[in-house]
Amino acid sequence: MEGFGGANLKVLPIPDTAPFTPLVVIELAEDTNEEAIAWLISRIKDKQHHGGAELMVDRLILDQNSKENHNIFIVGASRERLLVGAEDVGLVKEFSDGSMRSFTYANRHNFKNFLGDGDGFLSMVECQFIVKHELDILRARGETHVPGYPKIRLYPGKSIVRRIQSKGILVQIFPLHDKEELKRLSSTWYQNVRLSFQPLDDIRHYFGESLALYFGFLEYFTLAMVPMAFIGIPYYLFDWEDYDKYVLFAVFNLVWSTVFLEMWKRCSASLAYSWGTLSRKKAFEEPRPGFHGVLGINPVTGRQEPVYPYAKRQLRIYLVSVPFVLLCLYLSTCVMMVYFSAENWVLGLHDEEPTFWTSLLLYVPSIIYAVVIEIMNRIYRYVAEFLTNWENHRLESTYQNHLTLKVLVFNFLNCFASLFYIAFVMQDMPLLRQSLATLLITSQILNQFVEAFLPFWLQKRRNKHLHRKSGLASVDQELPFNQQVMLEANMSTYLGTFDDYLELFLLFGYVSLFSCVYPLAALLAVLNNITEVYSDALKMCRVFKRPFSEPAADIGVWQLAFESMSIMAVVTNCALIGMSPQMKSYFPDSETQLILLVVAVEHILLAFKFILTFVIPDIPKHIQIKLARLEFESMEALKKKKMLEAAAIQNKGQ
Amino acid sequence: MEGFGGANLKVLPIPDTAPFTPLVVIELAEDTNEEAIAWLISRIKDKQHHGGAELMVDRLILDQNSKENHNIFIVGASRERLLVGAEDVGLVKEFSDGSMRSFTYANRHNFKNFLGDGDGFLSMVECQFIVKHELDILRARGETHVPGYPKIRLYPGKSIVRRIQSKGILVQIFPLHDKEELKRLSSTWYQNVRLSFQPLDDIRHYFGESLALYFGFLEYFTLAMVPMAFIGIPYYLFDWEDYDKYVLFAVFNLVWSTVFLEMWKRCSASLAYSWGTLSRKKAFEEPRPGFHGVLGINPVTGRQEPVYPYAKRQLRIYLVSVPFVLLCLYLSTCVMMVYFSAENWVLGLHDEEPTFWTSLLLYVPSIIYAVVIEIMNRIYRYVAEFLTNWENHRLESTYQNHLTLKVLVFNFLNCFASLFYIAFVMQDMPLLRQSLATLLITSQILNQFVEAFLPFWLQKRRNKHLHRKSGLASVDQELPFNQQVMLEANMSTYLGTFDDYLELFLLFGYVSLFSCVYPLAALLAVLNNITEVYSDALKMCRVFKRPFSEPAADIGVWQLAFESMSIMAVVTNCALIGMSPQMKSYFPDSETQLILLVVAVEHILLAFKFILTFVIPDIPKHIQIKLARLEFESMEALKKKKMLEAAAIQNKGQ
Repeated sequence: MEGFGGANLKVLPIPDTAPFTPLVVIELAEDTNEEAIAWLISRIKDKQHHGGAELMVDRLILDQNSKENHNIFIVGASRERLLVGAEDVGLVKEFSDGSMRSFTYANRHNFKNFLGDGDGFLSMVECQFIVKHELDILRARGETHVPGYPKIRLYPGKSIVRRIQSKGILVQIFPLHDKEELKRLSSTWYQNVRLSFQPLDDIRHYFGESLALYFGFLEYFTLAMVPMAFIGIPYYLFDWEDYDKYVLFAVFNLVWSTVFLEMWKRCSASLAYSWGTLSRKKAFEEPRPGFHGVLGINPVTGRQEPVYPYAKRQLRIYLVSVPFVLLCLYLSTCVMMVYFSAENWVLGLHDEEPTFWTSLLLYVPSIIYAVVIEIMNRIYRYVAEFLTNWENHRLESTYQNHLTLKVLVFNFLNCFASLFYIAFVMQDMPLLRQSLATLLITSQILNQFVEAFLPFWLQKRRNKHLHRKSGLASVDQELPFNQQVMLEANMSTYLGTFDDYLELFLLFGYVSLFSCVYPLAALLAVLNNITEVYSDALKMCRVFKRPFSEPAADIGVWQLAFESMSIMAVVTNCALIGMSPQMKSYFPDSETQLILLVVAVEHILLAFKFILTFVIPDIPKHIQIKLARLEFESMEALKKKKMLEAAAIQNKGQ
Repeated sequence: MEGFGGANLKVLPIPDTAPFTPLVVIELAEDTNEEAIAWLISRIKDKQHHGGAELMVDRLILDQNSKENHNIFIVGASRERLLVGAEDVGLVKEFSDGSMRSFTYANRHNFKNFLGDGDGFLSMVECQFIVKHELDILRARGETHVPGYPKIRLYPGKSIVRRIQSKGILVQIFPLHDKEELKRLSSTWYQNVRLSFQPLDDIRHYFGESLALYFGFLEYFTLAMVPMAFIGIPYYLFDWEDYDKYVLFAVFNLVWSTVFLEMWKRCSASLAYSWGTLSRKKAFEEPRPGFHGVLGINPVTGRQEPVYPYAKRQLRIYLVSVPFVLLCLYLSTCVMMVYFSAENWVLGLHDEEPTFWTSLLLYVPSIIYAVVIEIMNRIYRYVAEFLTNWENHRLESTYQNHLTLKVLVFNFLNCFASLFYIAFVMQDMPLLRQSLATLLITSQILNQFVEAFLPFWLQKRRNKHLHRKSGLASVDQELPFNQQVMLEANMSTYLGTFDDYLELFLLFGYVSLFSCVYPLAALLAVLNNITEVYSDALKMCRVFKRPFSEPAADIGVWQLAFESMSIMAVVTNCALIGMSPQMKSYFPDSETQLILLVVAVEHILLAFKFILTFVIPDIPKHIQIKLARLEFESMEALKKKKMLEAAAIQNKGQ
């Protein structure tokens, strides 16, 4: 299964430029000073004990007359170097006894699938991750600045790649696709429509854990909604307007969503264990490229590094970012109110004297509102990125968390505020149902078109163009290696799973928040997800540059987001049921009693949810045992080693 | 400050029996077979590499004619043995650079306060904990049974002490008090009434971390309630019946209780860091003495050990224990209903024709109810222990958690059900206030009398008796060593912090659940806590045997219990305010609107609480940094070691 190195050299057209397996491509700015290039290459090639990265690097040979950027470099590494690097990045692999252990070079022969000299032990995506890591931790030693650029300062310990990246010398760095393997993956993944689970292990093998977990969650989420979808169908078919039945459906939904979110944690723990990311120890993160501050001493590492006061960042967050987000939320609500009053006004106009023009006018507010929302979304996203950047987080992960939170809150309001208004202020259930249906269907079609099929088509055109230029007759024929690299360099960059998760999150909101008025939503969501799998797979394989693998043990902040949504769903559904006329007819005399009952039920459901969360263990028992065994073994080994040492000291003493 | 060994030998009357510092006492049953005793002692004395504990042990010499148990043994250890043991138990001590590091024998000279050969480096309570640990992990080797007791089976790896403890051969094992140090501690702690913080470090130095954390929490909790108490006083003095003001008070209370519980986490993390328990790695827990099962292989350690199926335990929990607890809760509610109807009936009788006898009769239901509750409490406690035992938990910690949960739920209902009934069913606020005051004041007086002063007085009488028997004129004179040991052996055993925390928990409930109707509760609670500190200190120092230290990094399950209580407090206070006549008068037309408003406020408060919990980090920044630095250093050291090893291998190869 896993193959790289010798094996891959056979399937890739052997490049004329590099005597090693090409793994990663570095593109420098076209006008880069040759002195800087020579220095960078020598630092990358230098031996590790001289402070280099000990990697192989070669310039991509292009047609002299070509107008393309000639500063493109291919990076690779020897097999030993990669194995040593695998230990550096803390790769966890299957041991010969079936347990998952941190890989060590000294112990390499005891790992499963380590045959001969280790050919095929590391997958290509792992090799690329290792190369990326080794480049990232290539640090300046005595240099005070980048040669040829006296203004781009360096200090001992500064990551060279991060510095030239933030200064624009490094345009991009990306891993190469493996055409052969990609073809195999495509055929099992999306090219043949059939009923089967996604090949998660293959996806992880090609794209890494973070993406594989996204597709795993997408699949799990879809399967989890199938029961809801099935139960929802008769409500639609028989036009059940009976609120008793809606209550049943809503309660089932609420409990079910809690259970499935809890079970997902166990499921993802199992996946992460088998992929070796659950027990992986995180390496210390480098500061992100944009991080700046006064040069000081990092209190953790003791290394020289820019330092930025914690209190200052907190002030920026709480005095600027939080008020700004609140202001945006307020503005967005205002826009919504204007929209509703405009719609009302137009409706009144049309009711007064219905003409063709007024009936056309009916659509105007919605269209304007949609456009305004889209514009606001884009501006907000831009400002949110600016603000989060300005908060100057040291780590990429905290930066991402803060950005995610900002974008999430705003998107939530934008998508759901109008629905909340219709549901609780206007109390117009038919309109709510209609809006939900419209939103679900249009977003489904639009998203998948804009996100996958349109880019796919554009990329295909580009491919054809390049093939024609190279004098190849068919798109199926292999391009020469250098052409292939240029093709990939010009593909769009995949910006991470954020937008994909966001889409699922909003979908989950549509399904769960108002599930008791529109049971069909689950079915639409299932249909959406099935096409989503295909369109996402297509875009990963055909539209984007290959992304670097990101080791992930869970879906991170999204677990929290989905759980919060399911808590909100309890509140909204209880309120919707309490407002229904059928419910009100049970308590004709006293609305108060009805409300008290609804509030009581809501509190009981919430308490039940918390107890469930508490009772279901997050990691399955058998994996807990495996983890505990590993920890126990390492403790015992340490104890034994210490006793041996003590004995040795005693012997010496005698 | 810290002293043991040579230093202590000076202050303790040198025992005639043991040529070592006495640390721990083992009492065996009076009729224990001499063969078993000889075997046990030899196993305790054996060298470690022969599988022994390598401790010192000696029989306590008593008057031949004395009727006391003669099978009492004093255990001690050499200084080296204790230092090696300190490494085994994972003690974390202050390093010479001020950071807290796991103690290692090899590196001992680099730890702060390690002078000369380590005299006074370990405190006496640490030495006792180490001895206890070494006795606990003294395992059977080839023995198939305890010598002299063919029926008491052993198998390789079984802890000897646990087995003879569960079979009744070992009556008790306890650490000795240190009279000199105890006197010093008493004088700084409780003998002089003065305004100062408790000497937490000294308490920890004498009793260990778990108890010190309890007293720390007690103090913190008291201080945290001082603002509430102050704000509550004018409500009482000026008889403010104005619900606007009550609303303010309640909101302040709710937010404040969230903040102070969050801050406590940070506070306890700081304490635990400075005491070395925050970063302490837990050793693998032995199965508790009562645990039984078919002999199998522990999947974690690979050792032979009784194994009990997980599923079977879960079935016992969910099919027997949970229904039983629910039944008890139901019964307790029924008893309460009977009480209220009896009280009503008596009240009616008295109202009809008030005589002296009927006015006496008025007290009868309350008295009967109080007695019945007390009886139910005791029976329930007994059954809860039986059930939790029967659930057959492998670890003492899970056993304790399950027992705590059971007892907590029942006590909560018993204490608060009647108050809830008065508040929400009878809606009689003056009665609620009166009941709260009665409960608070009587429980305060009763508890402290039954819990501390009565046992103290009894113990004092026993002391006097023993002194007179030994022919000493005054209680201040030192008893001979063997008399002192016998005195301590007959003292009551402190059963852990459970009941102390439970008392605080119920107090917190009285203060927070109904804070908006009885603002004076906080003041009463503060007064209660001040006396509680003294009575608890008195009982720890004078009434009980010294308990073994328990390393603890936080207050465990009680943090969760207090947080749950503060969530419930939001619900009850909102409901109480919503029910107040003043509030109702604001919404004369529509009760519905009032309820909706109250529910909305409640939800906002709850959401705010969750956000606060999320925003306040559990561990203060400066301690996070220290912990991260330690981890980073150990990773770097590992890396360096591996590089050296790799270099050594390379050199060999050349």
